[in-house]
Amino acid sequence: MRLALSTWSEIETFLQRSRTIVIPIGSNEQHGPIGLLGTDWMCPQIIAEYAQESADILVAPTFNIGMAQHHLGFPGTITLRPSTFIAAIEDWVRSLVAHGFEKIYFLNGHGGNIASIEAAFSQLYADASFARQPAGFALKLTNWWDLEGVGALANQQFPTGHGIHATPSEIAVTQWAYPDAIKSAAYSPQIANSGPIREAHDFRSRFPDGRMGSDPGQASPEKGRELVLLAAQGLIKELQAFSRETTPLSHLGSSTNNC
Amino acid sequence: MRLALSTWSEIETFLQRSRTIVIPIGSNEQHGPIGLLGTDWMCPQIIAEYAQESADILVAPTFNIGMAQHHLGFPGTITLRPSTFIAAIEDWVRSLVAHGFEKIYFLNGHGGNIASIEAAFSQLYADASFARQPAGFALKLTNWWDLEGVGALANQQFPTGHGIHATPSEIAVTQWAYPDAIKSAAYSPQIANSGPIREAHDFRSRFPDGRMGSDPGQASPEKGRELVLLAAQGLIKELQAFSRETTPLSHLGSSTNNC
Amino acid sequence: MRLALSTWSEIETFLQRSRTIVIPIGSNEQHGPIGLLGTDWMCPQIIAEYAQESADILVAPTFNIGMAQHHLGFPGTITLRPSTFIAAIEDWVRSLVAHGFEKIYFLNGHGGNIASIEAAFSQLYADASFARQPAGFALKLTNWWDLEGVGALANQQFPTGHGIHATPSEIAVTQWAYPDAIKSAAYSPQIANSGPIREAHDFRSRFPDGRMGSDPGQASPEKGRELVLLAAQGLIKELQAFSRETTPLSHLGSSTNNC
Amino acid sequence: MRLALSTWSEIETFLQRSRTIVIPIGSNEQHGPIGLLGTDWMCPQIIAEYAQESADILVAPTFNIGMAQHHLGFPGTITLRPSTFIAAIEDWVRSLVAHGFEKIYFLNGHGGNIASIEAAFSQLYADASFARQPAGFALKLTNWWDLEGVGALANQQFPTGHGIHATPSEIAVTQWAYPDAIKSAAYSPQIANSGPIREAHDFRSRFPDGRMGSDPGQASPEKGRELVLLAAQGLIKELQAFSRETTPLSHLGSSTNNC
Amino acid sequence: MRLALSTWSEIETFLQRSRTIVIPIGSNEQHGPIGLLGTDWMCPQIIAEYAQESADILVAPTFNIGMAQHHLGFPGTITLRPSTFIAAIEDWVRSLVAHGFEKIYFLNGHGGNIASIEAAFSQLYADASFARQPAGFALKLTNWWDLEGVGALANQQFPTGHGIHATPSEIAVTQWAYPDAIKSAAYSPQIANSGPIREAHDFRSRFPDGRMGSDPGQASPEKGRELVLLAAQGLIKELQAFSRETTPLSHLGSSTNNC
Amino acid sequence: MRLALSTWSEIETFLQRSRTIVIPIGSNEQHGPIGLLGTDWMCPQIIAEYAQESADILVAPTFNIGMAQHHLGFPGTITLRPSTFIAAIEDWVRSLVAHGFEKIYFLNGHGGNIASIEAAFSQLYADASFARQPAGFALKLTNWWDLEGVGALANQQFPTGHGIHATPSEIAVTQWAYPDAIKSAAYSPQIANSGPIREAHDFRSRFPDGRMGSDPGQASPEKGRELVLLAAQGLIKELQAFSRETTPLSHLGSSTNNC
Repeated sequence: MRLALSTWSEIETFLQRSRTIVIPIGSNEQHGPIGLLGTDWMCPQIIAEYAQESADILVAPTFNIGMAQHHLGFPGTITLRPSTFIAAIEDWVRSLVAHGFEKIYFLNGHGGNIASIEAAFSQLYADASFARQPAGFALKLTNWWDLEGVGALANQQFPTGHGIHATPSEIAVTQWAYPDAIKSAAYSPQIANSGPIREAHDFRSRFPDGRMGSDPGQASPEKGRELVLLAAQGLIKELQAFSRETTPLSHLGSSTNNC
Repeated sequence: MRLALSTWSEIETFLQRSRTIVIPIGSNEQHGPIGLLGTDWMCPQIIAEYAQESADILVAPTFNIGMAQHHLGFPGTITLRPSTFIAAIEDWVRSLVAHGFEKIYFLNGHGGNIASIEAAFSQLYADASFARQPAGFALKLTNWWDLEGVGALANQQFPTGHGIHATPSEIAVTQWAYPDAIKSAAYSPQIANSGPIREAHDFRSRFPDGRMGSDPGQASPEKGRELVLLAAQGLIKELQAFSRETTPLSHLGSSTNNC
Repeated sequence: MRLALSTWSEIETFLQRSRTIVIPIGSNEQHGPIGLLGTDWMCPQIIAEYAQESADILVAPTFNIGMAQHHLGFPGTITLRPSTFIAAIEDWVRSLVAHGFEKIYFLNGHGGNIASIEAAFSQLYADASFARQPAGFALKLTNWWDLEGVGALANQQFPTGHGIHATPSEIAVTQWAYPDAIKSAAYSPQIANSGPIREAHDFRSRFPDGRMGSDPGQASPEKGRELVLLAAQGLIKELQAFSRETTPLSHLGSSTNNC
Repeated sequence: MRLALSTWSEIETFLQRSRTIVIPIGSNEQHGPIGLLGTDWMCPQIIAEYAQESADILVAPTFNIGMAQHHLGFPGTITLRPSTFIAAIEDWVRSLVAHGFEKIYFLNGHGGNIASIEAAFSQLYADASFARQPAGFALKLTNWWDLEGVGALANQQFPTGHGIHATPSEIAVTQWAYPDAIKSAAYSPQIANSGPIREAHDFRSRFPDGRMGSDPGQASPEKGRELVLLAAQGLIKELQAFSRETTPLSHLGSSTNNC
Repeated sequence: MRLALSTWSEIETFLQRSRTIVIPIGSNEQHGPIGLLGTDWMCPQIIAEYAQESADILVAPTFNIGMAQHHLGFPGTITLRPSTFIAAIEDWVRSLVAHGFEKIYFLNGHGGNIASIEAAFSQLYADASFARQPAGFALKLTNWWDLEGVGALANQQFPTGHGIHATPSEIAVTQWAYPDAIKSAAYSPQIANSGPIREAHDFRSRFPDGRMGSDPGQASPEKGRELVLLAAQGLIKELQAFSRETTPLSHLGSSTNNC
Repeated sequence: MRLALSTWSEIETFLQRSRTIVIPIGSNEQHGPIGLLGTDWMCPQIIAEYAQESADILVAPTFNIGMAQHHLGFPGTITLRPSTFIAAIEDWVRSLVAHGFEKIYFLNGHGGNIASIEAAFSQLYADASFARQPAGFALKLTNWWDLEGVGALANQQFPTGHGIHATPSEIAVTQWAYPDAIKSAAYSPQIANSGPIREAHDFRSRFPDGRMGSDPGQASPEKGRELVLLAAQGLIKELQAFSRETTPLSHLGSSTNNC
């Protein structure tokens, strides 16, 4: 079930059977010579939307602009500063909590988002923590490549040259979903070098065509299909487990500040 | 040309022939008994993506969560606070300006966004203004229903019961683009009442099914198609004019603080 | 009744008969060759103070520095950034709400303030909306030139060359109130040109003497007096209607998240 | 010369003979049984406007809402949080610096403002300090009761019961300027008690009628006149000295980070 | 008792006998030719840690980076902007209040911190003040040189050349605590000059070796020991008085907004 | 070399031979039944201060309060919100960069800090990235337990029950440095359970005595000494490598926006 294609009363009905929602989250940034700028937000969107075709899960609109300051040396990259990113996550979560959602799951497609998402979670929890009250909601972050079995499949598909940015696996996923937007380009070396990530100017100096450790030419739509199917299964399984999770009985009652 | 489906080098090439970009911007919020929660961000996205099929314009990813605090009484609504909204617009614009874009055009689908977008524009211009320097970029906001001829067409299609929220025209646009997501529901009165917009609790009290002044049942995919075609023409025309626009020769040189 | 010239116990007494207050709000910015820098905050102050002489209404101190970044190319302009402006409105409103005021009415004298004031209203309402609770207060913005009959009178007084900045009507109001500060200056063309509003440098290039579409030389103290008298009547009427307004009975009780 | 009653070109001319401006700054807050809510912003405004009648100094509009959170227990008090206050001071100063003002003098009427004004000064200076560059402007804060001779006069006028809030001296100043707004009320004890300043609830508990250590009934318009005349002289003198002040020749050139 | 060297259950036990805590707070900044960069945060830490050896008081970790923008012209200075400083104080206080602390005492070692600490206190109290509720905690700031008898002792030890920055008294305190880090250097003039404090560039121009009005060479470890002993006594006494303090019975009940 | 125990001119001299500095960073939070509240900031401080005794490295004051909102259920924990934490890191880095430091190394002692530190790095780099300029500095984060060989040693010392919070290795380090503050307590089970980290209330419910997966009773001062010695070696080695690092020659010159 896609939230954006639903009416408010359909969501009201959904809330009577589940308090869980999944938010695809990524980034819009350069992905090397043949990867699409939208790769990182399209991958989790593709997986989540595929998953909801066969399971009763609710998929929010995609959080499409993430933390990608280091890619600003390449045209087309759009970024939020971490402070803006954190504020936006806060507002998304508060909106969903206002409706009664209690388990909010972020399916992430961009490594550069992880720190800012986790910082945002802490920012959201902090209000309850200062008040020493239950927050009333639980937040969870999973990268799509960490879903059950997905990493193993990617390693098997791409034993060398997977790398960490503009990887053949993420490009394969978008090739399957957007076959009309498959690109080709000459690039060298075949496998890009690696190194630290700092500001955009330094990044482009180290990684002149935008790749980090990858050989994206190995991607194919068929490999993308395999990844999406497996990831969708993993997502459904994780959402079920997350939905069932409960907090143990509180022992805070014995503390100094409680009455 | 869709930015998210392009590579960074394709954008680099585009920048050699144009410094203009259009950003579809909307909101994800209740749209009455039959309107989709995504209506307001899908409408400008539909129009802009349709327009780029026949013209050499560049469409950014969609800014899909807007300022919709007053709709939080209805499940599925997601909002940014104005302060977050303004910070996000700042980061989008600064990212695009870093690449050399000079004319940044927001095609808006949500009335509730207008004040916060204009405030964001002023926030962005203020840095240059305090420095009394040219900003180096120009920002423009147009609501899709204000594109040339669109309002007149909507009035002709829906002489009564157009209203101002969950209107038949915006619903028609989404029906044309997402025919599998056309909804139906009984509602009364046929034309919803109107009134002031305040906090979410007050809003739901005044507008119990979410409509404001509208009779959305008049929408049809065919009417949506007519609106999209006309709006796309208007958009192309406006972008051309915006691209050609220049700043008159400066007279600031005579001022006290300049040397 | 002027709040600043009252004691706290007089305000405590006032609150027993009314929960409504009017805040004159404007800007301090260039107003062309003969307009005063304080025009936009003095106009609503003049009108509100005149109105309180004949009606039992309460007038707050004037919010005198508004959002005028585009006028910074002209000496004497002082502006708040939208983010500061919004924070300040929040604090004014929270202070008044703490005392029991429930209807807070902003009488505005500056077009450039409108977006930031409305964004501030949404920021203030958002807290209640996230909590799905009544806010406990209502906010209203009216430009003094939109008070009943005022626009018609100005059109009749100045059938040509009224324009949109440094207008003869606003200058007339200040001339009536501050006859010792009436200025004269040669300017040309008689009616200034118009155009988009961007950063200060661009603004001064387009509008070299600060006027936008206006011929301010038509102003006279007598025309100002007519405007003030009519506007004061309109203000009193609007405040009475606003004071009487109530929220319809809530239907939120049927929603998912309420218990 | 009053900035608000001037045109921009008059300010442009003024800047050719002086780069100094004075900003009256205060607070709008309870002042005990007979003091006016506007006392703290009216006093510096009265003094500065009186001073400009006999000296070529420039007086900005009044910063009328200050930091008065502790007075919120009394109706009519309006406060900015320190964070908002600091942001507003930043914007005022940046606006004036944009025009070429180099010496910005705040004439303060409220003790509770002092910490936030000084914090704002540091916030403004910090940008230049991180860059190890000259700021290009100097900021100065003086309380009107610290102007030359004023404290001695007040002690002589009110040898007992001057106190620190709702003092007879500040009330006298407003009585002279607003003779129609002189109030009277019974209060006891004759001299109010003193104590620490914390949140509003605590404040009202300690100081039930709003006074701190004062016996305001000793105020008279004539004493106010004496205070204003002396303070205006002191202000003119301080502004002259501030205008003449220069920074000693820099020795930063020998430091590590400079070239 | 030092909080950092305790377990959480020891603090839980402490809270059953006291709700008071002392936070040493200072700055890390240049202290002239022989003073240590850590002088201002080490002095209150030394005094508080000495005091807790003979009294049942609880000492928090030291807030070691303060507001020192004006010292950035000298290598080794680290500063927070006032806005960051205020946010950090807020978080420290909210953390301690969450555990049940009610009296939070800041023992300060840096004059430049005073404004920002007081602004932070107001920021913290403001939430309660807007709600017209008791805050539930009280905050107190004391500079260590203002503890009972300390100023008199310093005047007696250093009748001339005490000055206001890099003073012999603060250097003596660190000499006693860190005898291995006693420095010597030639400097002239013997007593440094004084003047206003502005941005870092201006500061270094006025005070080329970092001293303000002081002759630090008069410091000795023995004089430092005398100061620490006396200050520790004063601190214990102040903490006892602060712990005993209560708020008078509230009279807010009679106000308009209370029920 | 310890910055806090140096004079500014000693730092000025140091900068002529090195542009690298190490900042110990941690948290002040509960560490189970026998761990000290200061464990996480004391460990990196102990290691860095030990390292500087035998190598020419510069150690900044310790950033002692980190991101520990989840521990607020246990008395003595003090936390910064992520937004405050990020702002503070920004100010520390900007201060050091102002003096000419180019390599700023954070030696971290708290897992909960990692996300916020990395977000702060991105926030700092973003300014340069929007401007497409070199930042002029490089930032690096290393947890002390990730220094060369340290993890292997801890595994060997504590083959079972090391866990992830209140671990025997970190407690051993503090036992060696503060032998007078070694605590003992009964606890059960011997090895604590594990689980997700959310708000403080949930945390204390899951981990009633504060441990996560650990058996801290295995700690001993001697094991702590071994860890410190090995970690100090690793730190010195990492700082040398970091100091030597350079950015590859930039290729940004070929991009659209550069001239």
